[in-house]
Amino acid sequence: MATVRLVQLKALLLRRGGTASPPPPRALFIGPNRGIRAFSSTMSPPSKAVVYEEHGPPDTVCKLKELPPVPIKDDDVCVKMLAAPINPSDINRIQGVYPVRPPVPAIGGYEGVGEVHSVGSAVTGLGPGDWVIPSPPSSGTWQTYAVKEQSVWHKIDKRTPMEYAATITVNPLTALRMLEDFVDLKSGDAVVQNGATSIVGQCIIQLARVRGIRSINVIRDRAGSDEVKEKLKKLGADEVFTEGQLEVKNVKSLLADIAEPALGFNCVGGNAASLVLKFLKQGGTMVTYGGMSKKPITVSTSSFIFKDLSLRGFWLQKWLTSDKAEECRDMIDYLLSLTSSGELRYDMELVPFNQFTSALDKALGKLGSQPKQVIKF
Amino acid sequence: MATVRLVQLKALLLRRGGTASPPPPRALFIGPNRGIRAFSSTMSPPSKAVVYEEHGPPDTVCKLKELPPVPIKDDDVCVKMLAAPINPSDINRIQGVYPVRPPVPAIGGYEGVGEVHSVGSAVTGLGPGDWVIPSPPSSGTWQTYAVKEQSVWHKIDKRTPMEYAATITVNPLTALRMLEDFVDLKSGDAVVQNGATSIVGQCIIQLARVRGIRSINVIRDRAGSDEVKEKLKKLGADEVFTEGQLEVKNVKSLLADIAEPALGFNCVGGNAASLVLKFLKQGGTMVTYGGMSKKPITVSTSSFIFKDLSLRGFWLQKWLTSDKAEECRDMIDYLLSLTSSGELRYDMELVPFNQFTSALDKALGKLGSQPKQVIKF
Repeated sequence: MATVRLVQLKALLLRRGGTASPPPPRALFIGPNRGIRAFSSTMSPPSKAVVYEEHGPPDTVCKLKELPPVPIKDDDVCVKMLAAPINPSDINRIQGVYPVRPPVPAIGGYEGVGEVHSVGSAVTGLGPGDWVIPSPPSSGTWQTYAVKEQSVWHKIDKRTPMEYAATITVNPLTALRMLEDFVDLKSGDAVVQNGATSIVGQCIIQLARVRGIRSINVIRDRAGSDEVKEKLKKLGADEVFTEGQLEVKNVKSLLADIAEPALGFNCVGGNAASLVLKFLKQGGTMVTYGGMSKKPITVSTSSFIFKDLSLRGFWLQKWLTSDKAEECRDMIDYLLSLTSSGELRYDMELVPFNQFTSALDKALGKLGSQPKQVIKF
Repeated sequence: MATVRLVQLKALLLRRGGTASPPPPRALFIGPNRGIRAFSSTMSPPSKAVVYEEHGPPDTVCKLKELPPVPIKDDDVCVKMLAAPINPSDINRIQGVYPVRPPVPAIGGYEGVGEVHSVGSAVTGLGPGDWVIPSPPSSGTWQTYAVKEQSVWHKIDKRTPMEYAATITVNPLTALRMLEDFVDLKSGDAVVQNGATSIVGQCIIQLARVRGIRSINVIRDRAGSDEVKEKLKKLGADEVFTEGQLEVKNVKSLLADIAEPALGFNCVGGNAASLVLKFLKQGGTMVTYGGMSKKPITVSTSSFIFKDLSLRGFWLQKWLTSDKAEECRDMIDYLLSLTSSGELRYDMELVPFNQFTSALDKALGKLGSQPKQVIKF
């Protein structure tokens, strides 16, 4: 009996924050039978959710579960999720290799967009039909109905394309912050990046262009690189080179009228990181935000002493817990406005929730390079 | 005739700044014969100097030359050099591998101490017998008589031990600036460094101690490491480890009551740099100022993203040309006071000028590890 109650309790809590956090006192009175409870309150619909009860390979530990209704407290908002992406960091969280290891059982997903289904009695400023995103993002977006306190939800313009609303924080906000937080760039300045085809990379190109900042982009050598170059240039990339093209003595000789970049971005590591360093001007900064090649970054002593380079890192999750994060919602609105105007775009594939397993396989890279998988509930 | 005059002109100019810079108009009238000149002015004594006419191996290209007297202009101070060190950067300048390549012919040396021999008619505040150092340092200290404008010279306390006065800028000022310029340290904080036996390393230990900052020091594994540890601890090192001792899973478990360091210094590269990174706390900074192992610095992606480390570099010569350098002389006085009080010390070997060749061999590492070579004129 005690076991059944604990399991159900965890499941119910899962519905709230997405992870089994310490239960609020009231929850202790919620019995296994939905009819028996200490307080009368509106209940959410049941929720279909991607749950993992232990850390491990996502395609093994993730299960689709039907979760029972939970009470909607005075401050709560029940949101019918519309769409949520599968980001690499979601996968790392499930694998248990992310520095912040969510307690299990947990519901997957960290960002997404939904429509308000019902609200608690103390909720103001949000009502049924509103579109909302969790902002800052929070765990548990891979489910049909999420119940979280009203402070979690940020109301957005319903005219926003759904797949952009679902994905606006983790990648585009990373790109925006990295362009703002390290070097004071002016119109006419330039940045350099590797992994330019990643969503963050595509956002950097476009957000830079909006500010009149030029971009030098490095991509992998592989079949179809000419088409990739063409595509990135359409987004606003000023120069796009394959790594192979940069096997020259002086990479800067390849830049015609573009200023030497003071800021570079690295999400690959290994040789691709060294190429970013080569492009940087004296006193420049390289910001690492990913390591797709799984190779470390190697830097010569003279790069530090004589070229005065600085190497830094960026992690959105840490930024979101800093003081600066108060401005987060304004930035999200700015980014969403750019998606509405067509100034910010990137490839995504909307996949119905009942095909979650195949979307996860694509996100895990089992089918080669694929567009960002966004679950449509 | 023209050739003779050009050669002599260069030699005479050498006497001023140590390198053949554009000649002042008056110098054009100085003929090969000391008795024939356009202006009557006080002349310096002839100078015995270490001259290199081309870049290359210092033990091949450095020649001891007798340079003829030069006029002491109104603003000039003629200084009888007392002592000057052979620093690794002096060697790199002669080799032509330094980023700032002095025009040749040039006189070696970049710092040193001397006694004022005679002054030009417009010189105030300096007179014969005063002890002076070039501050900021400047080329051409490896000679018996140096003539430079009065603004070059900084008068110091004559009670300063000569060998410390000769060496106070290049190494101790580097240590001081690196402790000040990157992280705001408070008493009780800690720093970590490799290459702790270098002079900069020894200065970091002692300057940290003066401020109540604790130091964690990494040295090479080699015979006599116990004596080295003992010696560094006498200087004030809180912990000294050989690289081999740090082949453990969690280096921080080796620190008893010392705070995790927010600042680290690297003058070695390779594994020794990785060890400094391992000791650093979340958000810490490693400053590279040398690369004794000739190996690059290798850093994991997660060190940047999740541990939020920053990697920077320091080069004194660049700092000396910055705005901050105005405070340079105050810092030098502070450092010299510490040498007088015995709070700052390091090993040196004073070598008579006529044994320059053997001092150079030692500085080049031909005789294994040797104390800093300081030429006594």
